[in-house]
Amino acid sequence: MHFDLIAARSAVHSGERSAVGLLDAARMASDTPANRHTFVRTFWEQAEAAARAADLAAGSAALPCLPLAGLAVSVKDLFDVAGQPTTGGSRVLQDGAPAAQDAAAVARLRAAGAALTGHTNMTEFAFSGVGWNPHHGTPPNPADPDVPRIPGGSTSGGAVSVATGAAWAALGSDTGGSIRIPAALQGLVGFKNTARLTPLEGAIPLSTTLDTACAITKSVRDAVLLHEVLAARQVRANRRPLRAWRLAIARDTMQDGLDGTVANAFDSTLQRLRNQGAQIEQIGLPELSQLSRIQATGGFSAAESWAWHRVRLEVDGERYDPRVAQRIRRGAQMSAADYIDLVHARRAWIAQVERQLEGFDAVLSPTVPIVAPPIAAIADDDAEFFRVNALLLRNPSIVNMLDGCALSLPCHAPDQLPVGLMVWSSALHDDTVLAVSLAIEAALLLEGA
Amino acid sequence: MHFDLIAARSAVHSGERSAVGLLDAARMASDTPANRHTFVRTFWEQAEAAARAADLAAGSAALPCLPLAGLAVSVKDLFDVAGQPTTGGSRVLQDGAPAAQDAAAVARLRAAGAALTGHTNMTEFAFSGVGWNPHHGTPPNPADPDVPRIPGGSTSGGAVSVATGAAWAALGSDTGGSIRIPAALQGLVGFKNTARLTPLEGAIPLSTTLDTACAITKSVRDAVLLHEVLAARQVRANRRPLRAWRLAIARDTMQDGLDGTVANAFDSTLQRLRNQGAQIEQIGLPELSQLSRIQATGGFSAAESWAWHRVRLEVDGERYDPRVAQRIRRGAQMSAADYIDLVHARRAWIAQVERQLEGFDAVLSPTVPIVAPPIAAIADDDAEFFRVNALLLRNPSIVNMLDGCALSLPCHAPDQLPVGLMVWSSALHDDTVLAVSLAIEAALLLEGA
Repeated sequence: MHFDLIAARSAVHSGERSAVGLLDAARMASDTPANRHTFVRTFWEQAEAAARAADLAAGSAALPCLPLAGLAVSVKDLFDVAGQPTTGGSRVLQDGAPAAQDAAAVARLRAAGAALTGHTNMTEFAFSGVGWNPHHGTPPNPADPDVPRIPGGSTSGGAVSVATGAAWAALGSDTGGSIRIPAALQGLVGFKNTARLTPLEGAIPLSTTLDTACAITKSVRDAVLLHEVLAARQVRANRRPLRAWRLAIARDTMQDGLDGTVANAFDSTLQRLRNQGAQIEQIGLPELSQLSRIQATGGFSAAESWAWHRVRLEVDGERYDPRVAQRIRRGAQMSAADYIDLVHARRAWIAQVERQLEGFDAVLSPTVPIVAPPIAAIADDDAEFFRVNALLLRNPSIVNMLDGCALSLPCHAPDQLPVGLMVWSSALHDDTVLAVSLAIEAALLLEGA
Repeated sequence: MHFDLIAARSAVHSGERSAVGLLDAARMASDTPANRHTFVRTFWEQAEAAARAADLAAGSAALPCLPLAGLAVSVKDLFDVAGQPTTGGSRVLQDGAPAAQDAAAVARLRAAGAALTGHTNMTEFAFSGVGWNPHHGTPPNPADPDVPRIPGGSTSGGAVSVATGAAWAALGSDTGGSIRIPAALQGLVGFKNTARLTPLEGAIPLSTTLDTACAITKSVRDAVLLHEVLAARQVRANRRPLRAWRLAIARDTMQDGLDGTVANAFDSTLQRLRNQGAQIEQIGLPELSQLSRIQATGGFSAAESWAWHRVRLEVDGERYDPRVAQRIRRGAQMSAADYIDLVHARRAWIAQVERQLEGFDAVLSPTVPIVAPPIAAIADDDAEFFRVNALLLRNPSIVNMLDGCALSLPCHAPDQLPVGLMVWSSALHDDTVLAVSLAIEAALLLEGA
C-alpha cells in the first residue's frame, strides 16, 4: 500500500507528522518541473490555515480531528472556490469574477478539513479524455520520465497532482471517463460514483445528464473516504472474501482492440485474482455495441454543452481550443426530438443492461484499451487525436450512459506503463463496487505482479 | 352532495342496490342522444362481469368488497385496455393491434373492481383544451341543453360520461388541463395529482414531461378515492376547519380576462368561503407571467409530441386533425439546446414559485377564465379556436409547468353555466390540496349559492 491519505491522516492525528510539514512537502512537489503544467492557480495561504488547524486539533483534547486532517487536496478548475475565479481550463473565462462561494463539493471538502491547494489544469471545459490543453500546456504523464506522454483527461492536472505528491487526492468530474482515464494512465485510483450521489452546484457543466463530481486518490480506501465526504454519507462496504463476489467480464466491446501491454496486464490480473479464489464468469453484453446507434444523432455532451456554450462560442469562439469548439459545435445540429428520443432510448437501454447484470456484483474490464501515447503523437495530428480520444472514452463512457458507478485501480506490472482495471456496476451499487475493489486491491497486493 | 361513487358503493356493499342494476342504468344513460359522441368503443361485456362479481361479493361473507364495487368507470382512448385497440381519438391508429395488456392505471382500476365500460372520445392525441374532434364528432357539453357548447378537453368524452350518468368516474390524463378544463366546463370535479404519483405505462404520450394519469369524478371524496386507486397509496387528508387553512389568491395572470359569469362566480365563492371563516390572502405571483418567455421556443408538448409523431405525421399526416397536426409540427423547429434550456429554466422557475408559496396550503383561482363557448363559434374559425384554446389552457397549464397538483370543483350558481374553482399547490402537496378541497366543497354546500 502507498503512503495514502488515510495513512497520512493517522500520522497527523497521532502527532507523528505535522499537517503543516506535509503541506510543505506537497508544495515542494508542486514546484518541481513535473508539475509545471499541473496548476492554473494555487491557494497556499488558505491551505496552510487548514493545515495549521489540523495540527492544533491533533494537539488538543477539545478540538475534533477532521477526516481530511489538513492534507493537500487539489480542485479541478471547474469547481468554484470562494474568492477565486473558475476558468474551466479555458482562456474565455479568464476575466470572470471570483466565485462568491464554494461549489457544494468544495464546501464539503473544506468542512472535512482539506487543505485546498489550487485549481488544476484540465482539458478545456472537460471536453476530451486525452488531457491536451493548448492554453496552459499539457501536463506530462509522471509515469514515464523519459517520453512525455499524455496524462489522460479531462482531470489531467488533478491526476498529476496526486501522482507527484503535490496532493493526496484530487477533486474532479467524470462525464465520460474524466476521472478514470487519467487515473488509469497514471497508475492511480479513480472512483466515479452514481451521478446523483454527489452535488454539482457551483461546477461548470459539460453534460448535465452525465456529469459526476468525484475524486482521484492513491488507494481504494482513500476513494471510499473521499466519496463519503463528497456524498455526505457513510459507505457500507461489506468486507467479504474475494471468492464471495459474483464477478463478470464482458465479451463484447470492452475488450476489443487492447494494446499488448493492456491485454497482458488484464489477462494476468484475472489470473492473479483467480489464484486468490475469485469466481469470474464471462458474459455477453451485446447491448454495449448498441450505444453508437443510440447516440448517432449526437449524444448528451454535445447537445448539453452547446446549450451552455452557444452564446459564448458566437462571441469568443476563436479563443477556444479548436478541438473542443469543434466537438461542442456538433451539438448545434441536434433537434429537440432527437434529444428526447435519446433520453428515452437511454432509459430503455439502461433497463436492458441492468437485467443482464442482475446476477453479478460487478463487471471487470480494462479501464481504457491502450497505455498513454506520447504527446507528440497527438499534438499536431487531429485525426490521431480524435482516434485516441475515442479509444480512451469508449469503455468508461458506457458506465456514464448506464448511470452507473465504476472504480479504476492500477493492475500493471511495476516495470510497465500504467494500466487500469475498471470495476463497475449499475446505478446505486456504489458500495458494492467499492467493497469489490477493496478486495481486489488487497488480492493484487498479496499476489504480487 | 350528488349521489356519487362512494354513495353508490355503499348501496352496493349493503345490498340496497345491485351493481348490475347500476351498470344497466349507466348503459341506458350512455345510449341517450347526449352521449352520441362520448364513446369511441364500449366493452359492456367485461363491465358486466365486474358488476356481477361485485354483487356476489356483497352477498357473501367470504368475498372481499372491492373499492370500486363494480361501478362504471370510463377510460380515455389513450390508455391501453387488454384486448382493445387504443386510438387516441384519431383515425391514424384505427388499424392498430389490440393491446396485449392493460395500461398500469387501467390495471389498478380493474383490480379495484371497476366496471370498465368503454374508451371515451377525446381531442385527437390529447392536443387541445377545447374537446373538438372532427373524426368522432365533438361531444356537446351536457350543461346546456339548448345550445351545443364545447365540452372542454382533452378528456371530453370522459367528462360527458360522468356528467350524464354513463360513468361514476372517468380515467383521463392532464398535460395542460385536460382533466380540469372539462371538469370545470361541465360542473364536475377533476383532480390532477403530482405527475410522478400515478403511472403512465401503456398510455399514448403527449408530453412525457407533463403528462399525468388522473380522473374526473362527481365529488371531492370520489376524487380522493380514485386517486388512492390510481396512485396505489393512501391519502392523508387532514380534516381541519376551513379557517385553519392558509389560502391565497394570486393577483397575477390567473384572474386576467375573466368573463362575467366566471368573475361573479369566483367573487361570490370567495365571499361565501370567507363567510365560513376562510382566511384568504391576496399575493403577487409575478413569476406566472414569465412562462410565456420561458416557453417562447416551443414548450414541452410540441417538442415531445413531435418526437413521438414525426414518423407517423410524415406518412399519414393528412389523416390528422389539421389543428392538431399544426400544433405538433411546431415541435419540429425546436433545437436540442432550446429544449435543454427549457428544462433548466423550468427547474429554476419551479424553485422560485415554490418559495413564493411556502407560507400557504393552497392557492385558489378560476380553473378557466370563461364558460364553455358554443361549438359553432370555434367549428370553422381557426383563429377563434386557437384563442379559446389558449384561454382554456392558460391557468391549468401553469400547474403542470410547476410539476404541481390541482383540483377543480364547481363553484357556480345553479342557474348559471358551470364555473370551476381551482385549488392548487406545488409538487407533492396532493393530500393538502385534497383536504382543502374537501373543506371548501363542504363550506359551499353549507353556504348555498
